[in-house]
Amino acid sequence: MRVVDIILDKRDGRELTGAEIEELIALYTKDAIPDYQMAAFLMAVFFRGMTAAETAALTLAMAKSGETVDLGAVTGVKVDKHSTGGVADTTTLVLAPLVAAAGVPVAKMSGRGLGFTGGTIDKLEAIPGFRTALSGEEFLANLGRIGVAITGQTEGIAPADGKLYALRDVTGTIESIPLIASSIMSKKIAAGADKILLDVKTGSGAFMKTPEQAFRLAETMVGIGTLVGRETMAVISTMHEPLGLAVGNSLEVAEAIDILSGTGGAPELREVCLTLGAHMLVMAGKAAGFTAGYAELAALLDSKAALAKFAALVAAQGGNADIITNRALLPLATVRHTVVCPTDGIVQSVDAARIGYAAMILGAGREYKGQQIDLGAGLVVHCRIGDSLAKGQPLATLYTANPAKIAAAETAVTAAVAVGPEKADRQKLILGTVTAAGIDLA
Amino acid sequence: MRVVDIILDKRDGRELTGAEIEELIALYTKDAIPDYQMAAFLMAVFFRGMTAAETAALTLAMAKSGETVDLGAVTGVKVDKHSTGGVADTTTLVLAPLVAAAGVPVAKMSGRGLGFTGGTIDKLEAIPGFRTALSGEEFLANLGRIGVAITGQTEGIAPADGKLYALRDVTGTIESIPLIASSIMSKKIAAGADKILLDVKTGSGAFMKTPEQAFRLAETMVGIGTLVGRETMAVISTMHEPLGLAVGNSLEVAEAIDILSGTGGAPELREVCLTLGAHMLVMAGKAAGFTAGYAELAALLDSKAALAKFAALVAAQGGNADIITNRALLPLATVRHTVVCPTDGIVQSVDAARIGYAAMILGAGREYKGQQIDLGAGLVVHCRIGDSLAKGQPLATLYTANPAKIAAAETAVTAAVAVGPEKADRQKLILGTVTAAGIDLA
Repeated sequence: MRVVDIILDKRDGRELTGAEIEELIALYTKDAIPDYQMAAFLMAVFFRGMTAAETAALTLAMAKSGETVDLGAVTGVKVDKHSTGGVADTTTLVLAPLVAAAGVPVAKMSGRGLGFTGGTIDKLEAIPGFRTALSGEEFLANLGRIGVAITGQTEGIAPADGKLYALRDVTGTIESIPLIASSIMSKKIAAGADKILLDVKTGSGAFMKTPEQAFRLAETMVGIGTLVGRETMAVISTMHEPLGLAVGNSLEVAEAIDILSGTGGAPELREVCLTLGAHMLVMAGKAAGFTAGYAELAALLDSKAALAKFAALVAAQGGNADIITNRALLPLATVRHTVVCPTDGIVQSVDAARIGYAAMILGAGREYKGQQIDLGAGLVVHCRIGDSLAKGQPLATLYTANPAKIAAAETAVTAAVAVGPEKADRQKLILGTVTAAGIDLA
Repeated sequence: MRVVDIILDKRDGRELTGAEIEELIALYTKDAIPDYQMAAFLMAVFFRGMTAAETAALTLAMAKSGETVDLGAVTGVKVDKHSTGGVADTTTLVLAPLVAAAGVPVAKMSGRGLGFTGGTIDKLEAIPGFRTALSGEEFLANLGRIGVAITGQTEGIAPADGKLYALRDVTGTIESIPLIASSIMSKKIAAGADKILLDVKTGSGAFMKTPEQAFRLAETMVGIGTLVGRETMAVISTMHEPLGLAVGNSLEVAEAIDILSGTGGAPELREVCLTLGAHMLVMAGKAAGFTAGYAELAALLDSKAALAKFAALVAAQGGNADIITNRALLPLATVRHTVVCPTDGIVQSVDAARIGYAAMILGAGREYKGQQIDLGAGLVVHCRIGDSLAKGQPLATLYTANPAKIAAAETAVTAAVAVGPEKADRQKLILGTVTAAGIDLA
């Protein structure tokens, strides 16, 4: 195989064979193909796209490029969930214990974040003592004992994806549906999931800006799952305003506890978690249908069984489970500032991207890989689209260790919240689902 | 400047500024931008193209990336000629002494070849003793004394182009009109030409396969010349069958001498040389118009003044000028084989690409950079489109040092010459010209 011929084939719109893609990825993983050839290939993929068969072959090749996790020892159908991420996306912290409480094993590998806030692993590290680097034995032991374990993704999982992602990041080739889809799916497949539920967000605070993009990404990922024999389903939801109220690592842990204990948190965050969870129960064969699964999970929230599972998860991974009753045990930045509404009116929009940017300024997120983040920094939004506000009412509370950051964050929050005289309707939260059978609009 | 932003701008179809392109090339030349980012940029250029202003900026940035030649000391308007190359393209060997004989200084930097046969520098080295690496002083001294000098392109000329070309070669980004155009023009501008005449070929034996591509490349290069203030003109000619009869280094020198001495050679090669030369005379202000220039050059061929200039050029650069009267002084491979016509009929086509491939097999050309070539190898074609042939008549004579290569070359030649019952017309040779004023079809 001459790599330049593979590049030319892709450039000129000819379909590559599975064997060609497999060899390309295998050679690249062992540094036998230079980055400049892979960069040219990736840009050609950006312009030409990939067929379903090419995308599936790329996914499998990346999944096979390193270790794969064998969850065979864990009883039950393992349904993994992946969120495409967004602002105030506290979903995993609620969903993992909730679904585990229903008896579906949750074996989760998560990552760190880049952007407005941390990833699930960063958020969990805001819990004093919580260990996010479990050994394989510990991971499986916890799974067997309490039915849920969350660990950081090891470097051994899909190393080709890691190498390719780093290259895409510096060569302007991130925004390609087949490359995004195969990157996500390769890690899920390597991590041992039997079935995969995808939480695909769309809107200003999400990576996919339009519903069309989100459905296209979902269809691509479901198509991969179908071709590689792992049942895959996607739920498409909107993120024009932040999903939860809190943006920041310890602040999001606190909101997750609010949802799990029924004492607060954004109703939309609760709704998305119940929706995703209900689908997971159906996929795992633990619920007869979506409605039954939804009702069962709502009952597990009401009975505090999900909260108890969260406490067990925290304790099992070395964290201080007292945070559930005593939020003061969570780190929280000491400089606080309330941004107030500059005028009377109705909230027309809460731009999730700008809110996320404000949180990053305050120290909650990373601007570059490996950057230290402040687990106690971030903000809590106090308004939602459609709310009537009077001048001087709080829009958000900012938390930071660095008072010099307040002014810029306040500017971002003020720009994010548009207040006007018209009545404003919130956008629909759940747009629909995608399965191998097709799109089902909500 | 963040390089990834430049890549994204190009990828998404936004026009780059001249300053951005200049900085990009300057940084790349001094290895401050990694090849993988440049590869992604080049592939984005392949898909998005470049505006005239972007292409001109790229050309100037590459021209300025190294040494520039100052021909100010040479009297007269320096018109440089560049051929896009092709099979049996012996043009420079005839044209340089011919135009010099008319009093227009010819200061030529030429390259080595890759593909079916050598470049002009390789061909000249087939002349015993000929030195193609002249010092700057020697080059200017010869120019002043005999009005013509040909030297190999030094590494100091447009190094950014050399670096980019090597990267394009391995990343599938050769076939981009703005990249091809800026590569050619940057070297001509750095080499000190006042005006530039482009010899753009189209057809199976040329790099541009269709007239549309050839005219588009010509328009792009003329556009660059106009924007950077160097008058540029292009002549578009066809190369479906080989331009000359000989393909191979010493064989092409022999055909050039045939043309210069009026004893033979392909009439089409003579015609293209007279056409290009006439335009050069007009551009240099040495002829009142094309017809006058053409007549003047034809007279210089008839009078053997051009042949004498060729002899002076050979002698001035250390070569044995006796080759003009004694062809046996030129190297010629000792293994010879005549390919004969397998059937009676009329020659429908002589595929130049296949003829070129046969010559490369015989040892006349390089398959990879730096490869040693056999200056005495190649072939001479004995038929032209429209010729009536009887079975057994010679199609071509092959010359090689390696008898094992004969069979494959014979197969290629036989496949190249299609013989059939129909009357066949040769294609028009000169298709038209392109100047800043527009296209002028012949």
